[in-house]
Amino acid sequence: MHTVNEHMQGLGTVRSVIRDLFEYGLKRASEVGAENVYDYSLGNPSTPAPASVEADMLDLIAHEDSVSLHGYTSAQGLYSVRKAVSDDIRTRFGAEVGPDDIYMTCGAAASLTVTLKALVNPGDEVVAIAPFFPEYRVFSEAAGAVFRVAEADLGAFQINFDALSAVLNARTKAVIVNSPNNPSGVVFRRETVEKLCAMLKEREAEYGHPIFLISDEPYRELVYDGTEVPYLMNLYDDTVVCYSFSKSLSLPGERIGYIAVSPKIRENRALYAAVCGAGRALGYVCAPSMMQQVVAKNLGKTSDLSVYRTNRDLLYNALTEMGYEAVYPDGAFYLFVKSPEPDAKAFSERAKQLDLLLVPSDSFGCPGYVRLAYCVKTEMIRRSLPAFRKLIESYR
Amino acid sequence: MHTVNEHMQGLGTVRSVIRDLFEYGLKRASEVGAENVYDYSLGNPSTPAPASVEADMLDLIAHEDSVSLHGYTSAQGLYSVRKAVSDDIRTRFGAEVGPDDIYMTCGAAASLTVTLKALVNPGDEVVAIAPFFPEYRVFSEAAGAVFRVAEADLGAFQINFDALSAVLNARTKAVIVNSPNNPSGVVFRRETVEKLCAMLKEREAEYGHPIFLISDEPYRELVYDGTEVPYLMNLYDDTVVCYSFSKSLSLPGERIGYIAVSPKIRENRALYAAVCGAGRALGYVCAPSMMQQVVAKNLGKTSDLSVYRTNRDLLYNALTEMGYEAVYPDGAFYLFVKSPEPDAKAFSERAKQLDLLLVPSDSFGCPGYVRLAYCVKTEMIRRSLPAFRKLIESYR
Repeated sequence: MHTVNEHMQGLGTVRSVIRDLFEYGLKRASEVGAENVYDYSLGNPSTPAPASVEADMLDLIAHEDSVSLHGYTSAQGLYSVRKAVSDDIRTRFGAEVGPDDIYMTCGAAASLTVTLKALVNPGDEVVAIAPFFPEYRVFSEAAGAVFRVAEADLGAFQINFDALSAVLNARTKAVIVNSPNNPSGVVFRRETVEKLCAMLKEREAEYGHPIFLISDEPYRELVYDGTEVPYLMNLYDDTVVCYSFSKSLSLPGERIGYIAVSPKIRENRALYAAVCGAGRALGYVCAPSMMQQVVAKNLGKTSDLSVYRTNRDLLYNALTEMGYEAVYPDGAFYLFVKSPEPDAKAFSERAKQLDLLLVPSDSFGCPGYVRLAYCVKTEMIRRSLPAFRKLIESYR
Repeated sequence: MHTVNEHMQGLGTVRSVIRDLFEYGLKRASEVGAENVYDYSLGNPSTPAPASVEADMLDLIAHEDSVSLHGYTSAQGLYSVRKAVSDDIRTRFGAEVGPDDIYMTCGAAASLTVTLKALVNPGDEVVAIAPFFPEYRVFSEAAGAVFRVAEADLGAFQINFDALSAVLNARTKAVIVNSPNNPSGVVFRRETVEKLCAMLKEREAEYGHPIFLISDEPYRELVYDGTEVPYLMNLYDDTVVCYSFSKSLSLPGERIGYIAVSPKIRENRALYAAVCGAGRALGYVCAPSMMQQVVAKNLGKTSDLSVYRTNRDLLYNALTEMGYEAVYPDGAFYLFVKSPEPDAKAFSERAKQLDLLLVPSDSFGCPGYVRLAYCVKTEMIRRSLPAFRKLIESYR
């Protein structure tokens, strides 16, 4: 008998490349000083929560009964909160969801693990479109799915439809999309998602069962040029939205988000029940109770995101001027830069010698790039530019 | 292809008996008035969080930097918090745990699902000692285990060692114990746990592999007569403690607890890594960040628990005087009452006609009883007594 589950041991031992670089950065900062380490590894918001968020917390603590404020809510979340969320979705996007289509979660990761566990039967396939957030693989496999990757569109970083077409088959249970995208920063344009939905509808008809579109949307609010982010429920019936307030309200540690199950899904009630069952089986009793009330009072608000835009412009312009090739990001807080040599890990290692911490893209399913998380102090970007120049010059 | 995972759909559709009764109570209260419904269904603390807990929240919000207060922590929790927790365990119980043996969780349910996922390989068996919290079955099966029950000791509600002995075998991976116990309210005495540990050690030697003792301790602080609750890590090497602050600090909705992995476990580092991996696979990115800091400042403190003691004395004395047979509870906030007829469900139904909501014990693995959660207003207990009298008289 094995003492522990070795697959879990592996997941806990081999940390994600991102976390590894981040921990290295902390260690290095203690050696050479934090101001000399240019850490672009982690997607941790660098702008504070809106003042109204902290004001609402203070107000709730001061005026609400402690027993009910900090007590269990129903498993799917407080009715008043689910009503506020569904009203917000209806008002902003016109999708006809109601309170009983909303399930409050402990953040984006929980939204995904619960949705996948609700949908997947052993052997079902889950498709991600490269480049993708590496934990999609972990979450899909933990739910018992076979994880499949549709290769990237290396031009505009929209969708490579030939690759997607090749990977879809009768065992496809779901496709995960993430726009604005981590790691590319790109937003899928309306024509892209329309073509995606048309392809999936065709395959649903061909295979005779639904293919769910799981829209992972933690970056929905983070777009910088008024770029449209189409609401997929309006374009495709079998849509589940996985949302988190981590980035929009700068609350990543507080673990608060939701799942919205489209009422147009034919077996909508069965799926919603399965979401509740999956939450129960994974040990999610309810989303944090006070935070449920706080986010309900702050729907549609965001932190001051202007620093991200400033950072994007500064970093994109400076690096492309130096000769780097980079994908122009419409949203999120990531810049995807082409490695000057084919092996992005080697490039990341060389950058590390200059105390530039850049995440190689291999685990994003798209080798040959590095990801820069620019949710950092603008000052750090400025200080890092000479090192970037030195780095690219070392390739000449 | 099935549209959803039907096992999850089942778990989300057939709610626990407890939740069902609770929802019935809400409906009934709206019909006849809340003061006329005597709801003993749910273990939701009825005493507020200590004043220091809310004061610490206000202080953190007012003085800590928002970005770090609400930011991601490392997956296992803030180092300072894990250090405070391990110091507290060493000071209070003398067990030699350190910060790297502690993994902060989103509450007791998460502590259990993460621990089970870390330990279980398909086909491994997990044993619960009846009566037990019904979700143990759900959590164990979700981790891929075969769930086995050791029948109850119907005398003192300690452990039925003949039953336990019969259920242990070479496939046993873990035994879950819960003292103070939900639903019996009983605390396992020192001689009980010593005998348990001796039996498990013997079986470990016989089978040549560890059998883990998972100590689920959300009620550790809730004891009323100075009853000792032995710390199992001190008695048995292969112990994992699953703790929650839900009951001790009256914060059940805030989802905060921890796992303590005994350093005496031979493959301690492998198990701790598997715990980290399981947390990752289930989507637990970190425990709620502000609450981590709050509980670290309130270790060893509790809410004012005197109301539970008042309630226990009032309810136990009144019911036994009327002729009910009940287990004398040393802790938690549950009273386990023998049904006057063999079928506890029928008894619960008859009680319901008098607006007394009592949970039948079948799902606790111990038929023929009802559970009363007395974490309620003392006034409600007083008002309910005539109904209890009418109920038992109906059996004469």
